[in-house]
Amino acid sequence: MEHKTLLKELEKDIAAINQALVANLHTHVPFIAQVGQHILLSGGKRVRPLLFLLAARLSGCRGNNLADFSTIFEYLHAATLLHDDVVDAAPVRRGASTANTIWGNQAVILVGDFLLAKALALAVTTDKLRVLKILAHTTTMMAEGEILQLLHAGNLNLTEEQYFEVITRKTAVLMSAACQIGAVLGGVPEPLEEALTKFGLNLGITFQVVDDILDFVGNEQQLGKPVINDLREGRVTLPLIHAFSQAAADDRRRLQEMATNLQPEMVGEIRRLLTKYGSLAYARDRARHYNLLAQENLQSFPESPEKRFFQAITSELLERTS
Amino acid sequence: MEHKTLLKELEKDIAAINQALVANLHTHVPFIAQVGQHILLSGGKRVRPLLFLLAARLSGCRGNNLADFSTIFEYLHAATLLHDDVVDAAPVRRGASTANTIWGNQAVILVGDFLLAKALALAVTTDKLRVLKILAHTTTMMAEGEILQLLHAGNLNLTEEQYFEVITRKTAVLMSAACQIGAVLGGVPEPLEEALTKFGLNLGITFQVVDDILDFVGNEQQLGKPVINDLREGRVTLPLIHAFSQAAADDRRRLQEMATNLQPEMVGEIRRLLTKYGSLAYARDRARHYNLLAQENLQSFPESPEKRFFQAITSELLERTS
Repeated sequence: MEHKTLLKELEKDIAAINQALVANLHTHVPFIAQVGQHILLSGGKRVRPLLFLLAARLSGCRGNNLADFSTIFEYLHAATLLHDDVVDAAPVRRGASTANTIWGNQAVILVGDFLLAKALALAVTTDKLRVLKILAHTTTMMAEGEILQLLHAGNLNLTEEQYFEVITRKTAVLMSAACQIGAVLGGVPEPLEEALTKFGLNLGITFQVVDDILDFVGNEQQLGKPVINDLREGRVTLPLIHAFSQAAADDRRRLQEMATNLQPEMVGEIRRLLTKYGSLAYARDRARHYNLLAQENLQSFPESPEKRFFQAITSELLERTS
Repeated sequence: MEHKTLLKELEKDIAAINQALVANLHTHVPFIAQVGQHILLSGGKRVRPLLFLLAARLSGCRGNNLADFSTIFEYLHAATLLHDDVVDAAPVRRGASTANTIWGNQAVILVGDFLLAKALALAVTTDKLRVLKILAHTTTMMAEGEILQLLHAGNLNLTEEQYFEVITRKTAVLMSAACQIGAVLGGVPEPLEEALTKFGLNLGITFQVVDDILDFVGNEQQLGKPVINDLREGRVTLPLIHAFSQAAADDRRRLQEMATNLQPEMVGEIRRLLTKYGSLAYARDRARHYNLLAQENLQSFPESPEKRFFQAITSELLERTS
């Protein structure tokens, strides 16, 4: 399925999600809605709500409040972004000023807390304690992932294992929860719920590895933020971890030097070194591995439009880096 | 009941709460436990867990996991304190350095998120969706209250109504939720649940008004933070609101002047003006009003040790300011 066809077919769902995102933000304090809408409506591909929607439908759930429930995952994601931007003191996201730059850290921390509480309140309306249980576990893991990432900031000795632990917790568990909760609402048998849970997890890992590759190879306009921004904010990611382990002593020293004192003019040299040691190809290969696992997780499901969407999203992810 | 007798009789419960606070903090990331214990074990009177414990027992709940459930309210409270201290850039709380001073804002925001997630995870173990519903509503109101407080920072025109709205949301709803959830676990009839909910709310309002009075009349050692700290952090509270409304033009001007540029040597003059216009007495009177309402909310319950504790806590609160 072509990217454009995919988006076209999901257009109605995305519109319903966007509408629900605004509608469910109702609050006693108009300022909250203002900050909330800034982060929620400044782009974003609605990946998490769509994963939920598709997983729910793939699991036979036909409720007409799915768009409302889907906002749980975008609110949680937005809360994380708001707290992240404060943590990173980030000035720009998706090509726009970050909320903390406009309204200050204090307001942004508290609006993040509000979005978390709203997500919880919406989850309660599913009337299923298991949904809350999954979300409690997920948010705990996410907080741990964010803290691990912070503790590892600037750590040039980060291992591949530690890297995957961080990205699993900070990114993949929420996508996994979106899929699992879709399955729970559809009431599918346990093996299918488990398959969807794993699908979300593997897709999430692919998603983050791809994002981390793009941080090196993308351009500023496409990324909506400076190139090699991760390293600038202390995040050592897979391509660099690979390069550190493979590079000859002098190249490794040079990479470490640039990593600890990154300047805009070093971008070309870093890219050359990553290419020289096959580090971008290696990261693409790892992404492909998790992508294949995600495809496999879909095997037990009969053919359906939702399965085709899932397959299309999955393979499209990989194409972003090539 | 004397303060010492009260504490003596609740000693076992407080010990059980403290043990549960550490035990339930288990995490994959030792650093989180370290920061969490700093905020959780640096004093604090365990008011919220005790309110829950007593409400649950008063409602006939005799489960032996009450201490575990009680930590929900202390974790939520601690999460708020952590985010608050970042918002206020506060250097000292309870006479000790704040977590943000030691570990930086970033870590503290994320550990706050972790504690919130943990509270949610513990709430799920009650197996009651209503508990989650109450908590979702409570945390939403709390976030709104914190944001309102931030929006009102430095606003010398704050009305008494706005003041009560803020303190109800930022303080009273959590105490109310602790009592209500105790009642829910005990399974009492609705009117009794409502009575306990209102009791917690009225007690919470009393608690905050008393705290705001103490901020003016206490001494640094007793408060564990500088005197008139609220104003220093932009919070205009009841005694000052009253004084602004009652003072003669020149005194009002002088108060406004001091409020916008508070210096340590002004403490005596502010206290004198608050006394001159009966503003401390007025605030005490409002606290007494809510305190009486709280006492009334207990009337439908038969005599019991728990009811006596509640009555003792309630009347002791007022004595702190006289």
